[in-house]
Amino acid sequence: MVNYVSDAVVKRLPRYRRFLKDLKEQGVDKVSSKQLGEIMDVTASQIRQDLNHFGGFGQQGYGYGVEELGVRLGEILGLDKTYNMAFIGCGRLGGALINYIVANEPNYKIAALCDIRPELQGKQIAGVTVMGEEEFNQKLLAGGIDIVVLTIPADQAERVSDLLARSSVKGIWNFSMTEMVIKGKSIINMHLSDSLQALTYYINHPD
Amino acid sequence: MVNYVSDAVVKRLPRYRRFLKDLKEQGVDKVSSKQLGEIMDVTASQIRQDLNHFGGFGQQGYGYGVEELGVRLGEILGLDKTYNMAFIGCGRLGGALINYIVANEPNYKIAALCDIRPELQGKQIAGVTVMGEEEFNQKLLAGGIDIVVLTIPADQAERVSDLLARSSVKGIWNFSMTEMVIKGKSIINMHLSDSLQALTYYINHPD
Repeated sequence: MVNYVSDAVVKRLPRYRRFLKDLKEQGVDKVSSKQLGEIMDVTASQIRQDLNHFGGFGQQGYGYGVEELGVRLGEILGLDKTYNMAFIGCGRLGGALINYIVANEPNYKIAALCDIRPELQGKQIAGVTVMGEEEFNQKLLAGGIDIVVLTIPADQAERVSDLLARSSVKGIWNFSMTEMVIKGKSIINMHLSDSLQALTYYINHPD
Repeated sequence: MVNYVSDAVVKRLPRYRRFLKDLKEQGVDKVSSKQLGEIMDVTASQIRQDLNHFGGFGQQGYGYGVEELGVRLGEILGLDKTYNMAFIGCGRLGGALINYIVANEPNYKIAALCDIRPELQGKQIAGVTVMGEEEFNQKLLAGGIDIVVLTIPADQAERVSDLLARSSVKGIWNFSMTEMVIKGKSIINMHLSDSLQALTYYINHPD
């Protein structure tokens, strides 16, 4: 059923799910693509096209079942499962992201933490002890970690990339300011600056 | 010269600039759209199309001047100027973002900080004192702040949104987990979870 799905579509799926959650909380049972599009500021036809990649939802003239579509989008995203997550880099940004995930994202379990700074090792964050590199690398290579979050400086990215390539990790959420590509791994390179600079473009080019 | 430029193009401009910076640091003077495309994993024609929105760069068969194009992209983004930035919310995520900006983004000056938590008020972050709401709101409404970064809980977003609507702030970088829309303001709603969930999709749908 799932054919090629573009990155743009994949990125929109979590947003659809968020709005459906809000509608559900408001007690809404059914929503048409037109209504959903108005709330989300996208066209009804984009919603229909995006969802058609994953088979039919809703019936013509009837709309989507809010709860049903939300659950189905969660399944498509893989949010019917849980994931063991490790952090390499537990400084301010790493700590903030751990906090954010614990508070908001129940599908991700903080399973291991690593930082090369001795003063952070042995500290507990979200109930998990920060390890040094040697101990952490052994744990990582032993398997069982699904996703690694990187908040390391750019000059450490190559060394960590070699480690990850040898591991069974499936996904890498990379805040290290280097674009990482590793064969066989799914990677999202986050560049916070890119979005701040895009905002700056909009400030300078108002409609 | 600048006609309508899609959000997708705007989001790609900072990435072009980053790669041009790297090339410059490597001592490269000229780059063809084909070469740049190979490094960036995009097509040469996409690069040419994106840049054509802003007038011609480079000459056929000659390529782009690495430094010149980088500088020009900076100007297009507005990075030939500096911006006064205020943070509403100075907890872990706010603190991490302040740190990130001070370390990496010289065009943005931390000008004012606000947090409603009394234990954070009076603290210094990046040399700036965290204010309570009353003092901060006066400062904000007095003008001179260009960009506000929000790391507040969703339930405070409506109150802060009303304040921002009355201010002369131009841009809002919103990490508050509520999508904010304010007439006349440029806003980028950041949902960190969306990108983590997209990564989860890719893990579950490997090529």
